Amino acid sequence: CCVKYGVTSQYVLGLEVVLASGEVLRTGRRTVKGVAGYDLTRLIVGSEGTLGVITQATLGLRPAVPLPLTLAAVFASTSAAGAAVSAIVASGAVPALLEIVDRVHLRAIEAFRPMGLDTGAAALLLAQCDTGPQAAADLAALAAICTGAGATEVVQADDATESAMLLEARRLAYPAMERLGTVIVDDVAVPRSRLADLLDGVERIGIDCAVTVGVIGHAGDGNMHPNIVVPHGDEAALLRARAAFDAIMRLGLDLGGTVTGEHGVGLLKRDWLATEIGTVGVRISQAVRAAFDPAGILNPDKVI
Amino acid sequence: CCVKYGVTSQYVLGLEVVLASGEVLRTGRRTVKGVAGYDLTRLIVGSEGTLGVITQATLGLRPAVPLPLTLAAVFASTSAAGAAVSAIVASGAVPALLEIVDRVHLRAIEAFRPMGLDTGAAALLLAQCDTGPQAAADLAALAAICTGAGATEVVQADDATESAMLLEARRLAYPAMERLGTVIVDDVAVPRSRLADLLDGVERIGIDCAVTVGVIGHAGDGNMHPNIVVPHGDEAALLRARAAFDAIMRLGLDLGGTVTGEHGVGLLKRDWLATEIGTVGVRISQAVRAAFDPAGILNPDKVI
Repeated sequence: CCVKYGVTSQYVLGLEVVLASGEVLRTGRRTVKGVAGYDLTRLIVGSEGTLGVITQATLGLRPAVPLPLTLAAVFASTSAAGAAVSAIVASGAVPALLEIVDRVHLRAIEAFRPMGLDTGAAALLLAQCDTGPQAAADLAALAAICTGAGATEVVQADDATESAMLLEARRLAYPAMERLGTVIVDDVAVPRSRLADLLDGVERIGIDCAVTVGVIGHAGDGNMHPNIVVPHGDEAALLRARAAFDAIMRLGLDLGGTVTGEHGVGLLKRDWLATEIGTVGVRISQAVRAAFDPAGILNPDKVI
Repeated sequence: CCVKYGVTSQYVLGLEVVLASGEVLRTGRRTVKGVAGYDLTRLIVGSEGTLGVITQATLGLRPAVPLPLTLAAVFASTSAAGAAVSAIVASGAVPALLEIVDRVHLRAIEAFRPMGLDTGAAALLLAQCDTGPQAAADLAALAAICTGAGATEVVQADDATESAMLLEARRLAYPAMERLGTVIVDDVAVPRSRLADLLDGVERIGIDCAVTVGVIGHAGDGNMHPNIVVPHGDEAALLRARAAFDAIMRLGLDLGGTVTGEHGVGLLKRDWLATEIGTVGVRISQAVRAAFDPAGILNPDKVI
């Protein structure tokens, strides 16, 4: 539900952090707004343990939302699905959830558990609205936008049970792909206007590298998961998958995106991070890291 | 409209920054989501020129919202007004705007331009809803909450013209106070549940320090502006005002708040920043600053 409510880091108001020196640093605040000093809270969130050990976090809370209603829209082309996402964003509508499932995933899911999915479709969009009495009207507006963008079929749930059924396909995507082999999950984010380009590009990379790869992800914020399937024990396929993984990160950057939308850098993307943030960014990041941890004792292999 | 749409810093996706070394640093991304490396963007936003000179900013945009409808609610006690704010927050309603005007400001405004404000009231709450066709229903829900919290009068605007009139009082607050003397604007933020405590505490400080001080501000996110009036040329009153200013910052911290909600630290609050963030926070902030600017050439008098 990041589209509407944002990501967890936006709700982190303050932290208690044990520094490399053993000192305890308290960052942030307990208020909604505040601009006192540097934003050390956000600097430390996502730093993967390289600046300190987080021992406590103060989070902002929101009231629970009503049960959402769900819509599924089928598209015969990735460009039509991408146009629908762009039109939804441009309309100012903010669905609580807006997910995309591509053809590769649709076929894997239907093979795993037949539920009448259109395996000839290029992409399925799933959207949810959760604004209480307004939800049905909001959902109808999204349906109209999808139809306008060329959806070949739009299904609107009338109640929570139907909504849950429509989301079932999305939930089955990973187990369905895992039946085909080991799944290597990539995680790139692109501007939402470039979604179709990402889907088409990933399809080309799959052909070029001779691997099975499909895209599923959070269309509403452009955060996509290209998933590569490697048959168990196939060492040659694993090498081709690694090449595809790198090609997808290059594609994400070329589309004005980032090599990691939400999963972080870790060891796998260490070199790609340097490509994305550039030499000045690397040097400043190293200097910031040294400011926190001059001896380099914290999570030494990670990030910069 | 920070209550609903957040503050500008949340929309800053990336920056181009000239560092003390003369190098150009590019931070951030053009995507909605992204977690590549340290969040240097947020570190630099609000750093008051101490980490580099911002030469370009990439901002996320939102579609323009429909014209809002406005509500005004009169309260006979600060605790009732505070209870209304807490109840609105707890209900999950997110008004686009939620402002509070205290008795001191109400009287100054009514003296400046008579418009029939209830100068016996302890506080006036102003709220706006802007969700299009849903706005009237949302506003009615807020009105009901205000009535339930003990509002003595609730006025709902039927259209944009009436809405603008209701906001007029809020807009006149500063000119009205400035007619009485030089206005020293404080800026503290407290948890929204402590609003009444802040208003009552500021009233006590005004009595103790023998200064005219009132509170106006952004109730929806707890960001308050206690405004102290110093008659022109009254040096003794200026000294008392400075004591009141410091007492208000201490009060803000004691209520679990921050010494600056949105105006920043600058020179005026430099010493208070150290009180708020603590000795470890000061040391780490100085080290981060040195990582960006080892020679200390950038805005040397500011912040840490």
